[in-house]
Amino acid sequence: MRVVVLGADGYLGWPTALHLSARGHEVIAADNLIRRRWDVLCGTESLVPIAGMKRRVARWKAVSGRDIGWERLDLTSLPDTTALIAQHRPDAVVHFAEQRSAPYSMISGPHAVETQVNNVVGTLNLLFALRESAPDCHLVKLGTMGEYGTPNIDIEEGFIDIEHNGRKDRLPFPKQPGSFYHLSKVHDSHNIMFTCRAWGLRATDLNQGVVYGSGTPETDMHGELRTRFDYDDIWGTVLNRFCSQAAIGYPLTVYGQGGQTRGFLDIRDTVRCVELAMLNPAERGEFRVFNQFTEQFSISELAERVTAARKAHGLETQVEHLANPRTEMETHYYNAKHQKLVDLGLVAHRLEDSLIDRVIGLVEKYKKRIRPELFVPRVDWRLGGRGDFRKPAAGRRRVAVAPSSAAR
Amino acid sequence: MRVVVLGADGYLGWPTALHLSARGHEVIAADNLIRRRWDVLCGTESLVPIAGMKRRVARWKAVSGRDIGWERLDLTSLPDTTALIAQHRPDAVVHFAEQRSAPYSMISGPHAVETQVNNVVGTLNLLFALRESAPDCHLVKLGTMGEYGTPNIDIEEGFIDIEHNGRKDRLPFPKQPGSFYHLSKVHDSHNIMFTCRAWGLRATDLNQGVVYGSGTPETDMHGELRTRFDYDDIWGTVLNRFCSQAAIGYPLTVYGQGGQTRGFLDIRDTVRCVELAMLNPAERGEFRVFNQFTEQFSISELAERVTAARKAHGLETQVEHLANPRTEMETHYYNAKHQKLVDLGLVAHRLEDSLIDRVIGLVEKYKKRIRPELFVPRVDWRLGGRGDFRKPAAGRRRVAVAPSSAAR
Repeated sequence: MRVVVLGADGYLGWPTALHLSARGHEVIAADNLIRRRWDVLCGTESLVPIAGMKRRVARWKAVSGRDIGWERLDLTSLPDTTALIAQHRPDAVVHFAEQRSAPYSMISGPHAVETQVNNVVGTLNLLFALRESAPDCHLVKLGTMGEYGTPNIDIEEGFIDIEHNGRKDRLPFPKQPGSFYHLSKVHDSHNIMFTCRAWGLRATDLNQGVVYGSGTPETDMHGELRTRFDYDDIWGTVLNRFCSQAAIGYPLTVYGQGGQTRGFLDIRDTVRCVELAMLNPAERGEFRVFNQFTEQFSISELAERVTAARKAHGLETQVEHLANPRTEMETHYYNAKHQKLVDLGLVAHRLEDSLIDRVIGLVEKYKKRIRPELFVPRVDWRLGGRGDFRKPAAGRRRVAVAPSSAAR
Repeated sequence: MRVVVLGADGYLGWPTALHLSARGHEVIAADNLIRRRWDVLCGTESLVPIAGMKRRVARWKAVSGRDIGWERLDLTSLPDTTALIAQHRPDAVVHFAEQRSAPYSMISGPHAVETQVNNVVGTLNLLFALRESAPDCHLVKLGTMGEYGTPNIDIEEGFIDIEHNGRKDRLPFPKQPGSFYHLSKVHDSHNIMFTCRAWGLRATDLNQGVVYGSGTPETDMHGELRTRFDYDDIWGTVLNRFCSQAAIGYPLTVYGQGGQTRGFLDIRDTVRCVELAMLNPAERGEFRVFNQFTEQFSISELAERVTAARKAHGLETQVEHLANPRTEMETHYYNAKHQKLVDLGLVAHRLEDSLIDRVIGLVEKYKKRIRPELFVPRVDWRLGGRGDFRKPAAGRRRVAVAPSSAAR
C-alpha cells in the first residue's frame, strides 16, 4: 500500500514509518519539524540523540535498501496539504501530526490556542484535501484514550448503545477530556465523524493509551534510526519518566495519590496497531474507533512495577508523591474495552520487568544527559506554566481567519 | 448587573443589549463588526437597513436616556479580550460573538477553518480572560440545538443519565452536529465544560433553536434601533426566509421533503431567555445547559403555517421542494426537552398568524430591496460553495499558532 505518515519526526511517527517501510509498503514521511522547535521553547531535549530526517531516511536506505519519501510540510497550510495528497494519492494516511502534550497545552492561553488551532486546522485541511484528491483513501488518525476521561461506566470503543425513555440509539460515547490538548482530539474526532457521514470519507480513530518503550526492532538497527525519548515534565510519558528517574537513583515522582488509572501500551504495539488498522480499512462513509492500548494500570502500580524490577537487581527505589498539578480524579472506576485491534490480530507485548530493564538500560547509556530539574512539573492545570517558556520562536506560523479569496 | 454583550452588532446581540439596558442593567456592547464584512464577501445584505453601532448607541441614549458602552473588539486577540474583561469586571458576559451560519462554514476549506478558528479561539481567549480577571463572572454562551443532531432518543438538556453494564453515570449528551459551524459550537461546549471543572468558572450554555421574528419592543422604538433581518441562503433563518418569499409572491423553498424537525423560538424570547439565565447564574464550577427554544416544527409545517396566514388574507402561496443541499435526515424522531428556562419564568411567545403577518408586514416595507436570486441555495454540503464568494476582504485577521513569548 502507499501510505503517507504525517508527523513522521515524532516519537511514534518515525518508528511507524520504519515499521511500514520494513513490511514493503511505499511510505511518504511528512513533518514540519515543529516538535524540535517546541523542545527549544520548553528547554527540553530528547534523552537519546536523534538524527535529522534526511539523515534518517538515508540511513534507512543504507540499512534496509528501502526508500522512504521525505516531505517537509505544515498541515496548517491547505494548499501544501492538498498538493501532498494530490501528488501521492495514497491508499492510507496515518496522522500523528499534532501537538501532543497535555502540559504544553496548559501553559498559557496562547499555548492552548496554538494546540487547538494546530491540531484542528491541520486535520480540517487534511479532510478537505482527501475529499478533493483522494476520497477513497483511508484516514488512520491518532486520538487518545484521554478523550473519554474517567466516567463511572465501562468505556466502549467510540460508540455506546443507549436506551432512554423506551427508545434506543447507538451514539458517540460521551467525552470528558482533561486538558486543552485532549480537547483538541475530541474536536478532531467530531470533525472527522461528520466528514465520514457528509462526504463518505473513511476513517479509523485510534484512541491510544499512554505509550512506553525505547524503540522498535527497526529503530534499534542503527544509532541514526533511533526515535526520540522524552523524560521531562512536558513531553515525557509516565513510565518512560519513571525509568529515567530509576536509572539515576532519583525518586519516582507520582502526582497525587497515584490512583489515576489509564490504558498503556508498548511502542512496538503502537506500530503494529497502526499497521492492522491500515490493512483492514474502514468502509466508505464509516467512522470507526479502536481503543488502542493493551493493559490498564494505576500510576501507583506502575511505580511499583519499576520498583520491583530494580529490586530484582538488588537496587532500592524511592517513590515521592507530589501535589498533583493536574485536575483529575485520583481514585475512580476505570474499565475500558480494547477488543477490536485484538480481533484484527494484535498480540500484545505485556509490560514485563525485562522491558523495564531494557528501557532503563537505554537511559543509563545517556544518563549524563539527564537534567533532573526537568522531572519537576512546571505546569499547573489551574494556574498555568511556571518558569521560563518564553524562548523566542524561530518563526511564526499564522492561520488566516478571514479568507480573502476562498471559494471552493 | 454589569454585563458585557459580545457580538452586539448581530441579529440577536443588538436586541439583547437593548433589552438588558432597558431593564436597568449596565451594558457594555462589543463587536468586531465582521458580520458586515461577511455580507460583502457573500453578496448579501440585511433586508432592513441598519445603523452603525455608534449611531445606534447614541439613538438609544436619546430615546431611553440610558447609556450603552460600545467597544470595537476582536475576541481572537487575547490581549484585547483580557483588557476588556479586566477593565469592566462584569457580573456576566453574554457571548454571541461567533460565525453563526452553517452554509458559510460549508463553502470551502478556508471558510470551515475560519469558522472553527474564529469561534473556538474567541471562546478560549474569553475563558482565559475570565480566569485571570473575573473568575466569579457568569458566562452566558450561545450554543445551538444543532449540537445534538437528530438522535433516535429524547434530547435532554446537556446531560443524560446512562446506565450501562450495571453501572450509572450522568454524562454529557452525545453530540452529532451537522456542519462545521455546528461542530464549532460543540468544540466550544467541551472547552467551556472543562474550564468550569478545572478552574471553577461558571457558565450557562444556551443551546438555542432557530430564531424568527423582526425585532423586539426596543428595536421597534426607532428606525435607527432596528436589528438586521436576513432572508438569503447564507444568513437567513428558515421562517424569516419564508416570510420574505411570501411577501413578494415567490414560492416557499423547502429543502428536500421538509420533514426535518427543529426547535424554534421568537426573537423576543431569545432576549428574555438570556436575561433569565443572567439573573439566575450558574454556581461556581457549574457548567449547565439550557435548551433554548419554545416549539418544535418540521420545515413543512412552517411552510403550511405561512401559507395559512396568507390564505387568511385571501392570498395564495406556492411551496417548492428543492433538492436538499444539506446532508441531513428528512424524516426522523425528534423530541427535545426545554423545561429549564420555563422553570426560571419564561412565558413563551407561541408562533401565531399575527406574528407571521407582522414579519411579512415589515418585509413588505422593504420589498424593493429583496433580491430573489439570494433565495437559491449556493452551498452544497458535499461539494461546497457555488458562485462567487471570492470578494476581497477589507483586512485579514490572523491568529498566531506559534507563540513567541507566551508564558502566563
